[in-house]
Parts: sequence; C-alpha cells; structure tokens
Amino acid sequence: MQLDMLIKNGMILTMDSRNSIIENGFLGIKRDTISYIGDGPGNKFDVKTVIDAKGGLILPGLVNGHTHAAMTLFRGLADDLPLMEWLNNYIFPVESRMDADFVYTGSLLACAEMVMSGTTTFCDMYLFEEEAARAGKAAGMRCLVGEVLYDFDSPNYGSIENGLKYTESLIKKWRNDPLVSIAVAPHALFTCSPDLLSAANALALKHKVPLIIHLAETENELDEIQQRYGKRPVEHLRSLGILGPHLIADHCVHLNDNEIGLLAENSVKAIHNPESNMKLASGIAPVPDMLAGGITVGLGTDGCASNNNLDLFTEMDMAAKLHKIDNMDTTVMDALTVLRMATIEGARALGMGDIIGSLEKGKKADVIIIDVNKPHLTPMYNPYSHLVYAAGGNDVSHSIINGRLIMEDRNLLIMDIHEVMERARNRAREILEWLPSSDAPPAMP
Amino acid sequence: MQLDMLIKNGMILTMDSRNSIIENGFLGIKRDTISYIGDGPGNKFDVKTVIDAKGGLILPGLVNGHTHAAMTLFRGLADDLPLMEWLNNYIFPVESRMDADFVYTGSLLACAEMVMSGTTTFCDMYLFEEEAARAGKAAGMRCLVGEVLYDFDSPNYGSIENGLKYTESLIKKWRNDPLVSIAVAPHALFTCSPDLLSAANALALKHKVPLIIHLAETENELDEIQQRYGKRPVEHLRSLGILGPHLIADHCVHLNDNEIGLLAENSVKAIHNPESNMKLASGIAPVPDMLAGGITVGLGTDGCASNNNLDLFTEMDMAAKLHKIDNMDTTVMDALTVLRMATIEGARALGMGDIIGSLEKGKKADVIIIDVNKPHLTPMYNPYSHLVYAAGGNDVSHSIINGRLIMEDRNLLIMDIHEVMERARNRAREILEWLPSSDAPPAMP
Repeated sequence: MQLDMLIKNGMILTMDSRNSIIENGFLGIKRDTISYIGDGPGNKFDVKTVIDAKGGLILPGLVNGHTHAAMTLFRGLADDLPLMEWLNNYIFPVESRMDADFVYTGSLLACAEMVMSGTTTFCDMYLFEEEAARAGKAAGMRCLVGEVLYDFDSPNYGSIENGLKYTESLIKKWRNDPLVSIAVAPHALFTCSPDLLSAANALALKHKVPLIIHLAETENELDEIQQRYGKRPVEHLRSLGILGPHLIADHCVHLNDNEIGLLAENSVKAIHNPESNMKLASGIAPVPDMLAGGITVGLGTDGCASNNNLDLFTEMDMAAKLHKIDNMDTTVMDALTVLRMATIEGARALGMGDIIGSLEKGKKADVIIIDVNKPHLTPMYNPYSHLVYAAGGNDVSHSIINGRLIMEDRNLLIMDIHEVMERARNRAREILEWLPSSDAPPAMP
Repeated sequence: MQLDMLIKNGMILTMDSRNSIIENGFLGIKRDTISYIGDGPGNKFDVKTVIDAKGGLILPGLVNGHTHAAMTLFRGLADDLPLMEWLNNYIFPVESRMDADFVYTGSLLACAEMVMSGTTTFCDMYLFEEEAARAGKAAGMRCLVGEVLYDFDSPNYGSIENGLKYTESLIKKWRNDPLVSIAVAPHALFTCSPDLLSAANALALKHKVPLIIHLAETENELDEIQQRYGKRPVEHLRSLGILGPHLIADHCVHLNDNEIGLLAENSVKAIHNPESNMKLASGIAPVPDMLAGGITVGLGTDGCASNNNLDLFTEMDMAAKLHKIDNMDTTVMDALTVLRMATIEGARALGMGDIIGSLEKGKKADVIIIDVNKPHLTPMYNPYSHLVYAAGGNDVSHSIINGRLIMEDRNLLIMDIHEVMERARNRAREILEWLPSSDAPPAMP
C-alpha cells in the first residue's frame, strides 16, 4: 500500500458514527486524504513519512466553531469590567482605527495558538477578513471566514453597500481554495436592519455558502429585538425567512422551547461558547435541551477579548461542567458528547461534516496526536474523559491538516512563531497609545 | 550580598498587601528564605545559582487548599455518573481494598503533577496519610495532611479509637519537619458523630494544629444534618463549639447569610473547589458573599476523581467565570482577587500566611516562574489577567520550594516521573480487577 504518511503506535479515536476506537491503530494518508485506517498487521506499507504517536491518542483535529481570530491582540487588555465600559473605552476605540495588518498579525498569532492547542479548522467573523483568510492559509489551517456586516460604516469596506460587494468578491476569489471558505456574516439582529439581513441571506443562498450570525447572546439583545420587532430573536429571523440549514447561529443563549423547536425544524446549526458567555455574564445556553431537540451544536472559543485563550480543551471542560451545575445533574454533557461537539458535530455545524470531523477513509486528513505520557494524564482508563476533563492544549504533540504536517513534537513547521509574537507585541504597544489616556490597564506598573 | 540563589530578568508579582509589582526584578534566596527582593542595580550579588526568568512572571508558588492526592489513581475511572453509582460501584470498592503503597504511589504522582502545574503547597485529607506526608517530602513539596476520621472502620487504622491515636502519632512524628505539617481531619458532619467531632477538635486544639472538614458540600448533606440535628451544618458545628480560626472548611457550598456571618465572626477559613462542585453537581458556593463578609477563602482542586486534574490555573479560570455567570456580573471575582485566593489567601487559610503565599523578605522561598513567551500568552497587557484567564499549568517553567530548585525548565529534578507513572499504571491495572465485573469503564475497547 502506497502512502505519503503513516501514523502508528497510538490509540485512534475515530469519532465516527459508532465512536469506533482502534487500539494500536494505523492511519495512512495519501496526498490530502485518509486512505487507510485500521490495524497494522497484514499490510505492507510503502511510506514516505512515518509518525510515531508513542502510545498517544490519535483523533480528528478540533473544530473551533466561532472566533474572532484577530482579537488575540486584545487578550487581557481589559477584563472584569462592565460590558459598556469594556466596549466603549477599549474595544470600539481600537476597532475604529483597525487596519489590514492588525487583522493579519492578530489572526496569524491566533492560528499559531490554535494549531498548538489542537484546532485544525476555525470559523471566523471579523473585519478585514481577507487578512484572516490569508493568515489561515499561511498557517496551513482550514477555515471558514466572513466579513462582519452591520448598519454602520466599516473601517475596512466603508459603507454597507460595499460590504456585500466585498463579501461577494471574497467568495469568488477563494472559491476553489482547498482550505479557505467564505461565509456571509451579518453581525447580529440588533446591528443589522431587516433589509441587510435579507440581502445577506440572499447572497449566501446565491453562492451556496453559510450565513453566520451572533444570535440571542445577551438579555439586552433579547429585550431590544422584542421592543423593536415585537418578536423574540429566532422568531424575527423566521419572519424574514432566514432560518435554514445554511445558517450558523453563534451563542444561542436566550432561547425558549419554541425557538429551540424552530431551530431544530429548520436544521439551523448552533455554536456554543461557554467561556465567553460566562466571562461576559451573558447567560447559559440551553445546550442539553438543544441537543435533545436534535440541533447540531458545535463548540467555539469566541475571541480572545472574552475568554482569553483559544484552547478548545479548556472550552470542552467548561462546557461539560457548566451544564452539570446548571442542571444539577452529573450525567448531563458527558465527555463523549462534548468531544463530539468539538470534532464531528462542529464540522457538521460548519457544513463540513462530509469532509472532516472524524477519522474515516476518504475524509480529508486533519489529525492531531495527544501525548498522554505525562503525570496529569496518568493513569488512563478512559480516553474521552482524559481529553475533556484532564488534558489541555499543551498536550497536543502533532497536527496534520489536509495531509500536511503542520506541527511536529510541538514545533510549528511552517511559521516562525517568534517573529509572529514580536509583530503582535509591536501592534499591542500601538493599541495602548490608541486608548483614552485615563484607561490604562490597571495592573501594569 | 551573599545569596544561594538569585532569580532575575522577570516581572515579580509579589502578592503582598499592596500587590506590588517589580518589573525586571531581582529575588535573592539564602538557604530556605527570601533575603532580597527589589531592583538589581546598586547591588553586588555573590551567588551560587542564578536563574534567568527570561522575561517571565515570578510569583509565589500556588497553594492547593483542598485535595485528596492519592485519588490521581481514580482519574477518569468513572465520570458523568449519578453520585451513588459512582461511589458504590467505583470509589468505595477500591477504597475498601486500599493499602499504603496505593496512597504513596498516587500521592507521588499527584505531587509530580502539582509541581509541574505551579503548586508548591497542598492540603490533603485521605487514608494512610503517613504515605501522603512521605510522598510530599520525597517530592520536596510543602504540605498539610490529615488522616480522614469517620464513624466506621478504616482500612488504615482500624477502629475509630485508633484514628485519633494515629493522628496524634503523626502530629508528634512530623512536628519539626520544615515542609510537612499534620492536621486533624474528621471527614464530614454526616459521617462523624458529635462525639467524634468534639474529640477531633480537642486534639487539634491540644496540639495547636488545624482542623479540616468537608462542610455543606451537597444538598443531601444539608437535608441530612437538618433532619438529624434540627440545625444547618454551620449551626451544628457552632453548637459543638467547634467554630474557630483553626477550622478549615472545604467546599462551603450550601450556606445561608447567617452561616456566612458565623464563619466570618469565628475566623473560620474556607476552601473553594469550583471544578469539583460543578462536575459533581454539588452547587455553587456563595464565594463573593463570603469574601464580602470577610472570610479568608482559598482555592482547591479536590481530588482527581472529581476534577480530573490538579491544575490550579484552570481552577482559577473556572472560579472567576463561574461566579460571573452565577451573579450575571462581569466585575465579580476579578483576576487579582482570584490569584490572591490561589496564593496569599490560600496560605492564610492553611495557617501559613506568615511564612508563604507572597514574595516578601523573610518569607520562605516558595517561588514559581511562568514562561510567557508563547502565542497564547502574547501580547501581555495585564499579568494577573494572563495567569487567571489564559495560562495553564504547563506554562510554569521553574519551581523553587523552601529555597530548593525542584523544577527547572519543566524538568523535575528530584523525582523520576517515568518511574512514578509506571508504578501508577501498574496500580491502575489492579484497580480495574477490583471493580465489580459489570462496571468496566465504558469507553475502553
């Protein structure tokens, strides 16, 4: 059997429909695709590159269903503040002066962090998204990105008419890229008029690409939408004819049972962001009810301003524990369910369930290896439990994306992280100068 | 100035009463004690060992206020189960066959994990605690340990009369140890008769050592104590005359305002264990109210059966976020407050506030260094925010305990972790044989 790459000597968690596990498994890759998965003996492998998993766990790369990658440059700039103070004194003043290099630099830093913590695919919504796409490409990552659209002018494309044109140009430009896909991304119901939402939806349908929106994130949003339109957020979207299988709804915190039913009936996808929802005191999404209702739910970190890292392992841990305490039930959100949200269910949420999210013959080769030969991962009775409750992003040793080895023994092979970090530090110094002078971060001497 | 060790080239977070920060600070150690802290220039240092922090953060070693170290051997054995199934089918069958080597091995593994994630002091309560003390000693860690006492026979000391004698023998044996201290540790109100609680308290007072107890952890406990004694848990302890500054109360989940007042008035110390409380669906401790009431609150991981790691960084992150969402207030449990709980307030809770918990001249030299030259810790605006919201245990590069270098560039210097992990894996294989056969862990193939 001819292979470009063979991963051996690990326990393969396939995350397929039967959650098959192959102890001491062999995973073969040809070009960008998984061409063999199973036992070793009986096969003659003719391989260019052999990767020894050294007894570790071999699983699909994680899928970060919702982030704002460039916000790594805001990491720790302003925490523990009331929402409006945070937005008005920190986030908005900086975003108003944002430029393309800012987004490229911040996104590249995010990609380094994501790869080093096991994420191989991310879904991004922000400004200057051409730069997020370029950064994802430069980092060798798979991504779905959408330029944020809203009713006011953007520092990137100017007036809103240009926003839809800019998005369409991105769709056309990246259409045949093996790693980068483009979505249409209206920001939220309270920042987008019904006309803009409808136009965005029409553009997504025209090009058969996903439509991404922040939905029902805060109580304020719920109140405002009810006041403005006399409907709850999901009902408002329904009245505009926007609910459908192409819609990716981020957060979904404030849903009632009727809205859960509407999302399920219309095959809308949801992304759960527990750490951000907790840190911003937004509320607790009814994820167990959404899963019981049949909604496909992925997991996201949101941006670094509200997390403050992009580590899906801590996100999984938080998701599992948050819903247990919220429901006062230890059996809710078991480890396997949560790991599926970060892999195959996340892939499905992004419309990529047929090509990634599980390790199966014919799927694209997005694979990570976890080094379990560490005190905090010893002993190992149950690999799912380890991944959700005990491991962290630092335990990822290797990352392969689309058949390409991106990280080997924690070394990024296609990016100079020290140069990226230095660029990020330089931009951070500028950010401090952009802030109103009285709002210097409190802890710095 | 003559020094045994000098740490330089980092930002020192002293965690002193003014939360002083020394940028590019110098920390000098003579024998077991901090003998200099401040700027470098103007001093002539005559030093045996120089440690270059390489621009990292230098802070007091973290204090794990409540754990059951040997339960590392239960890590992931049985998760996401109803409490009674977990206890009856997994924990109790194994604990009934437990032996001294089990506790030594599990505790040594725990010490390796704790040192590697920045903890320098831990407070332990379990069976065969002589072995936990020996393991702590072998690992070079500071610890306060107490043999668990309850109304039934123990696999260690046999009948309860022996439990108090065994505890007293430990107190005498370890009295002059520089690192190991002994506490009296009745398990909980529902497992200890009033007579046992009173006898345990008398022993603690006689020897001027702390008294440690699980308190108000679950709703079941609250109901049972009210039914049995007609009082809530804290009131029950008061009626026995046990509330006092020597009492360390673990969990404190189900407290009303009156009980918070009683704990505060009597200077009882509390340890908050958010990850365990969430995973076991015990409830959410009213920590912001306890802090507002003036109670000294430390942070603990609890044991690995309910967490499943001993990483105080993820515990800090969880504590900060859990109370924001519980109170729907982003300003609750800010990063500095939470970091103080894991350092100086934790030290105070264990009665060690005068000797450790902050970096000040004359205190014992328990120091850790955080490597911030990583994508997920870049850029750095606010070091407290980084430590609580972005860092993980893996980011700790060095650990010095009582003036001794225990970990250097993530290498444990006084322990062979591969031998310890191998011993732990061997014990884990036995544990699987001890379980009722129908209860094999679900995920293993």
